[in-house]
Amino acid sequence: MTNEIPYKIYLSEDELPKAYYNLRADMKNKPAPLLNPGTLQPMTLQELSTVFCEELAKQELDNDTKFIAIPDEVYDFYKMYRPSPLVRAYYLEKMLGTPAKIYYKFEGNNTSGSHKLNSAIAQAYYAKKQGLKGVTTETGAGQWGTALSMACSYFNLDCKVFMVKCSYEQKPFRREVMRVFGASITPSPSMETNIGRKINAEFPGTTGSLGCAISEAVEVAVSTEGYRYELGSVLNQVLLHQSVIGLETKTAMDKYGIKPDIIIGCAGGGSNLGGLIAPFMGEKLRGEADYRIIAVEPASCPSFTRGKFAYDFADTGKVCPMAKMYTLGSNFIPSANHAGGLRYHGMSTILSQLYHDGYMEATSAVQTDVFKAAIDFARVEGILPAPESSHAIKVAIDEALKCKETGEEKTILFGLTGTGNFDLYAYQSYNDGTMTDYIPTDEDLQRSFDTLPKI
Amino acid sequence: MTNEIPYKIYLSEDELPKAYYNLRADMKNKPAPLLNPGTLQPMTLQELSTVFCEELAKQELDNDTKFIAIPDEVYDFYKMYRPSPLVRAYYLEKMLGTPAKIYYKFEGNNTSGSHKLNSAIAQAYYAKKQGLKGVTTETGAGQWGTALSMACSYFNLDCKVFMVKCSYEQKPFRREVMRVFGASITPSPSMETNIGRKINAEFPGTTGSLGCAISEAVEVAVSTEGYRYELGSVLNQVLLHQSVIGLETKTAMDKYGIKPDIIIGCAGGGSNLGGLIAPFMGEKLRGEADYRIIAVEPASCPSFTRGKFAYDFADTGKVCPMAKMYTLGSNFIPSANHAGGLRYHGMSTILSQLYHDGYMEATSAVQTDVFKAAIDFARVEGILPAPESSHAIKVAIDEALKCKETGEEKTILFGLTGTGNFDLYAYQSYNDGTMTDYIPTDEDLQRSFDTLPKI
Repeated sequence: MTNEIPYKIYLSEDELPKAYYNLRADMKNKPAPLLNPGTLQPMTLQELSTVFCEELAKQELDNDTKFIAIPDEVYDFYKMYRPSPLVRAYYLEKMLGTPAKIYYKFEGNNTSGSHKLNSAIAQAYYAKKQGLKGVTTETGAGQWGTALSMACSYFNLDCKVFMVKCSYEQKPFRREVMRVFGASITPSPSMETNIGRKINAEFPGTTGSLGCAISEAVEVAVSTEGYRYELGSVLNQVLLHQSVIGLETKTAMDKYGIKPDIIIGCAGGGSNLGGLIAPFMGEKLRGEADYRIIAVEPASCPSFTRGKFAYDFADTGKVCPMAKMYTLGSNFIPSANHAGGLRYHGMSTILSQLYHDGYMEATSAVQTDVFKAAIDFARVEGILPAPESSHAIKVAIDEALKCKETGEEKTILFGLTGTGNFDLYAYQSYNDGTMTDYIPTDEDLQRSFDTLPKI
Repeated sequence: MTNEIPYKIYLSEDELPKAYYNLRADMKNKPAPLLNPGTLQPMTLQELSTVFCEELAKQELDNDTKFIAIPDEVYDFYKMYRPSPLVRAYYLEKMLGTPAKIYYKFEGNNTSGSHKLNSAIAQAYYAKKQGLKGVTTETGAGQWGTALSMACSYFNLDCKVFMVKCSYEQKPFRREVMRVFGASITPSPSMETNIGRKINAEFPGTTGSLGCAISEAVEVAVSTEGYRYELGSVLNQVLLHQSVIGLETKTAMDKYGIKPDIIIGCAGGGSNLGGLIAPFMGEKLRGEADYRIIAVEPASCPSFTRGKFAYDFADTGKVCPMAKMYTLGSNFIPSANHAGGLRYHGMSTILSQLYHDGYMEATSAVQTDVFKAAIDFARVEGILPAPESSHAIKVAIDEALKCKETGEEKTILFGLTGTGNFDLYAYQSYNDGTMTDYIPTDEDLQRSFDTLPKI
């Protein structure tokens, strides 16, 4: 196979972006501010700084600064595993027999196994810079917890992870990776926090939820001297850090004169999608270019496609600021048969605003279709994808097959956020034919919408 | 950190080697031929071709052709995950405070998680080219089985894997990855073969061994129309394919004017070490350069450091050709507390001859030291290494610390053969403090030496 465009486009280290791109600076309609759940007033820097490191709180509130320099220490860490490759999916195209040209940005080539490390290292750095002793966080599928453990180990910070109990039990290996990096892992709900004890008392035997683990992590952070809380998705600061994904992608594509027609990313809290699309969406907002941008979410947790655009609580314990976002209601928990991440009830306020304003589309996929796409992809492209990433694969394949019908040579870009190396339980259930699909009924959703705050 | 040498040296796709380098062509003392265990005569091409694909049998016997072209189809596959990065271990150097310059060639950035894929894809290609229906193999730790499953899936070949029973049970996730790629996995010893039934009858409840799984895989290959057997290490053909590791490393180092003083690799059957050192050893054999080359093996399976250089059986069932190699005796099985691979009783005949002739050194390490090195490495370099690879890390660290004492700025190169993402059981036992070491006594070894054939 001889082609001008290599299978993998690797940038050199000096092509790593020097600054994060803050998409909010180019948005006419800014994302709605976080509200103090007590006063219903926008959160101030001071208030946010009791939860987050001060520098991160500033980034959270900054809707105007277009570029924010990547600190040298973070840049050095990025050089361990970045720039990540932009891969031309020649073998997938061949298998599909499509005239479409498919590219994916692969973020799985690091031990945490996903893009989460991009924000984890920045967050750990700012915590260290502020002189903190450590940070707390929660993890569901385990990607974020692993990433933050690695980052904290690098900066010699203590890292306390509340891991959703069912994942703690089902994913012992994720837990062990975090222990390798020196983190302490507590199954959530635990008996170590007020909210944990309360939930355990109310729901004996519960296997936990992301919303509950967030509440526990925040409670420990705000009540422990020298600690702050860090979160791996949803927040503006996280999308800011993840812009390195999109910036690298754009640089690599520009280098070879490639312009994507369609950009596809999976969406749980929005960190990967927001990062991948950032510079492309910026061009779109500035009227310099047009792209079709598609968010793909699980049919079992369909915030964009079936949620409400409203202020909601970010966590089960209602201790976090409230956010205006597409949401299913803060007590929504995807069915137990839902594998992998993308299980948060809400969505990034930035992406919610952009979706509301018509700058992007959203669609959903059921998980057996997603795993079928994952395995088809693995067999020809040689990478076992994360269940999360496979949502994007599924829709990329669908779009490529449409091109096959119409004969259009569209260029499709999608985000391959990570590997499925720690998701073999889910693959096993697919291999065994025991995996099932779940789509919440309208009644299910109505029950959780009823818990939305009336503001 | 600004340095002329980047953190990761990536070659471009057109710098991928076009041909394998056959180290045997530069050896004055050729490796001893494989013998037919019945006649004790050297195996002929015809005899070997009943077990291996014909082209691979030819490669096995070819001591003279210096370069063997990489087939286009294999080259295309390599472009999925090669060239692999040569990494400058800046952070490890900093942690150690050593003046040494440390480099590692990282082979773990593919779903099989190790260098084994380099030979698997070549072997699958030759099987396909010969018009075979499928291949059989064995796997212990699971790296080779995963690699061959991926390779067979790519060429649409059936792949039957006999997996050592204790690994089958302890590493369900490796098994699931193989199933994703369409392979069928049988725990060994099984009831599907004569040798399996015999071993099960003799040793009820046995958890199997690599030597036994090899016998089963060979039995099925030679008795099934359209099938051949493939092996992931030890053989001359495998070292030939693995020369891509060393060739890329040499190209990358030459590009930046780097010359290693010490080259370190872990050694089980010898595939990674033989591949990594190939072009360097070639220069050494031709008298063009000198390098210190160190093989590192587990103290629990010390073929080089405590074995005999003698003809021995390659498998428990004694159905395979006999090889002259450093061996512990074909009935040697490392203690059950030995984690990871590097558990084969023998060693590549090529490396055995080179070691015997004084061209390389060997040393051994106990596993708790190895895991300590692994975790130290992971925390600064951000890669969770395979237990196998960590043997090389351990000795690289030791050598770097010697440089710290003497102030010498030596350049150390080691092979990081893969990731430990599927070895978390072993990491867990280290994290829990329950991992123990095992060093066979002289009496243990003598008992297995007594089974060496008297020829």
